[in-house]
Amino acid sequence: MTVIEFPTSDKATGDELREQVREAARRGREAAAELAQATRGAKDALLQDMADELVKRAPEVLEANEQDVAAARESGMTEALIDRLSLSTGRVEAMADGLRTVSGLPDPVGEVLRGQVLPNGVQLRQVRVPLGVVGIVYEGRPNVTVDAAGLTLKSGNAVLLRGSSSAENSNTALVWILRDVVARHGLPMDAVQLLPCHDRASVHHLITARGLVDVVIPRGGAGLISAVVEQSTVPAIETGVGNCHVYVDASADVDMALRILLNSKARRPSVCNSAETFLVHADIAEEFLPRAIAELGEAGVTVHGDERVVGAGGSHVVPATDEDWDVEYLSLDVAAAVVESLPAAVEHIREHGSGHTEAIVTSDFRAAQQFTAQVDAAAVMVNASTAFTDGGEFGMGAEIGISTQKLHARGPMGLPELTSTKWLAYGDGHVRPGSAPVKPGS
Amino acid sequence: MTVIEFPTSDKATGDELREQVREAARRGREAAAELAQATRGAKDALLQDMADELVKRAPEVLEANEQDVAAARESGMTEALIDRLSLSTGRVEAMADGLRTVSGLPDPVGEVLRGQVLPNGVQLRQVRVPLGVVGIVYEGRPNVTVDAAGLTLKSGNAVLLRGSSSAENSNTALVWILRDVVARHGLPMDAVQLLPCHDRASVHHLITARGLVDVVIPRGGAGLISAVVEQSTVPAIETGVGNCHVYVDASADVDMALRILLNSKARRPSVCNSAETFLVHADIAEEFLPRAIAELGEAGVTVHGDERVVGAGGSHVVPATDEDWDVEYLSLDVAAAVVESLPAAVEHIREHGSGHTEAIVTSDFRAAQQFTAQVDAAAVMVNASTAFTDGGEFGMGAEIGISTQKLHARGPMGLPELTSTKWLAYGDGHVRPGSAPVKPGS
Repeated sequence: MTVIEFPTSDKATGDELREQVREAARRGREAAAELAQATRGAKDALLQDMADELVKRAPEVLEANEQDVAAARESGMTEALIDRLSLSTGRVEAMADGLRTVSGLPDPVGEVLRGQVLPNGVQLRQVRVPLGVVGIVYEGRPNVTVDAAGLTLKSGNAVLLRGSSSAENSNTALVWILRDVVARHGLPMDAVQLLPCHDRASVHHLITARGLVDVVIPRGGAGLISAVVEQSTVPAIETGVGNCHVYVDASADVDMALRILLNSKARRPSVCNSAETFLVHADIAEEFLPRAIAELGEAGVTVHGDERVVGAGGSHVVPATDEDWDVEYLSLDVAAAVVESLPAAVEHIREHGSGHTEAIVTSDFRAAQQFTAQVDAAAVMVNASTAFTDGGEFGMGAEIGISTQKLHARGPMGLPELTSTKWLAYGDGHVRPGSAPVKPGS
Repeated sequence: MTVIEFPTSDKATGDELREQVREAARRGREAAAELAQATRGAKDALLQDMADELVKRAPEVLEANEQDVAAARESGMTEALIDRLSLSTGRVEAMADGLRTVSGLPDPVGEVLRGQVLPNGVQLRQVRVPLGVVGIVYEGRPNVTVDAAGLTLKSGNAVLLRGSSSAENSNTALVWILRDVVARHGLPMDAVQLLPCHDRASVHHLITARGLVDVVIPRGGAGLISAVVEQSTVPAIETGVGNCHVYVDASADVDMALRILLNSKARRPSVCNSAETFLVHADIAEEFLPRAIAELGEAGVTVHGDERVVGAGGSHVVPATDEDWDVEYLSLDVAAAVVESLPAAVEHIREHGSGHTEAIVTSDFRAAQQFTAQVDAAAVMVNASTAFTDGGEFGMGAEIGISTQKLHARGPMGLPELTSTKWLAYGDGHVRPGSAPVKPGS
């Protein structure tokens, strides 16, 4: 086994850093052209080998990770963030399993999406092709490094990884191993590159490398995502900010509504598909609220309620402020309001929702129809928890993120969402009839 | 018939103009929510009536257009641009026919794209929904006003039209008529709005109205498109810049290659799918070049050739400069080079192409396979003219533009490309198993 030297960052700044990022993108572009031609067999074998190698070389990864964790502790990082940063043998094995899962998924590249023979005899078909060079900007979790590399490589793309400086040693060790395996398989090592992370400017250089980078996907908190999306001149996909609602309709089965609300809120409050607000129809509020408040209290949830919710009592119920309707808590907090009607619930969601996941609990067919038609979100649930919005749950095998925008992909993004398309037209000397040569401008 | 007053621009500037544009977007958003629920029947009837009304009120439109044309002449506009601006009874009828065509196309909204029952019994399906509010930024042609309105309304979207100030009277007359018909059909008039065009700042306000506008599509020259795409914080779709190539392979049938080159170049040089460069394999150059140069000369085309092309002679052959390989002439000019191999042609296209349409003329199966696999463009033609890249030719019925980017849509964009998707999940009290409530950050 040859260990390939991974270029160490020389802490460049200013124009030099910009040129480093652009040069990485150019090398990524070359690698992407080669990778686009790789067969599914070659890509699957690559991912399997990457998984094996990660497990084999886990000690290297853990040693690098210990340095990051020690530095993080010294800098006073919170325990929650340190937990996200920390790796263990089990977590490295989970990354390897992720690669094996992706290896087993169908290859989207080459899939024929539609096609026909045109009236003139030209054979036309639209096929999936890789996007090219994909930039991923993310925060402390080192597992994103491996997940993102697996998904982008499988879909025939080159990836530029821009992780957090707090995980620099871990990410460098991981990428070193992955590149090593890529090279051993005779594929271009620059299909996986880690960008310098010592200076925030490298993010800016990445997201403005229009023409060199085909898409940027930010993964992290709301601040990171909106900064990337707003400053990017490279097409960006907005992911993962979820101000999700559970609406309990007048006709709801109260037991079912309680179960769905509790699961949506408290199953894993730190993830984007967890509920942040519940709305309850006035006709059922008197029956529903006391039980909901009690059960949420038992689960440790603080309720930020409007006047009528506060009126229903409970020591863990506090008055909601205007901000509570818009905030993504990601914690054991929930905003709650009583609404007069289903249209009022839809209106509240239209005003405050982030277009991620919205749920209705109802027994009324027409209410379900209205809610699903009128609520504009990536996913709308009827009598099911908001927690189901997830690539794994949707049967995609793995996801690179959950898009909350409307272009290109909406909801969980799996391998097909990491591709573009190309039209192929086969003729036999076909030309398009029409005017004789005409002057420009006509 | 009630004539609805169309709000006249009061030539606002600065913050006031910004607020005007944002208020239009907000009204568009309200209208879009209503329009998203309109049935295909309602939308088709609307478009049919718009067509009839345009023909009936053509004199109003022509009168307004005469004012624009007179002002344009006075300002010294070129005849080519005046021709683009000018309307006639025939051109108004053509717009009406366009609306009737779109009326007859299938409605993309509601189409089920995929679906399954999850292992837990939840019924999942992905359906097409309108994008919401679509902004169109365009230049002098008033027919874009009607075409864009027809396509966006049919796909359930509201449209904000930002046309050229040179066409202000024509566009106002057209939009007045369209809004009038929308109102008569009981639909929200603000589904079609014309933005102020007296100040370039209105474009800026439109393309930065993130959260209010869902997508911006620029239609026009390369300068307009790149300005919109680079400055936009609203997702934008890059359209229509075409530096298209015809590659004549060593194995090409020379007669076929000449026919395809002439058609690709000279059929309509002012449109984006026309060829701007041809590349010829060295092995066939001696046979092909003299005939190609002669035929291009007869068609009035100036050839900007590399050394070997210039060496083949002809009074209309001039030496190519470095810029010639990258320019979109949109005129009776073509760049030409001899290449040593198919990979050299692919490399030239990778360096200079704009990702629109690339063609190979070949009799060799493997050459066709290599070219289609390795050339990265919206459309790749084998033995067919570049002129076929067109929504009408591809059987889409109508197009809003030709996307040259890789996200969301690539190539001609018809009605489905003006939609997003939504996941619907129907359960019966389903919750997601998993950990007991965990602390945030874990």
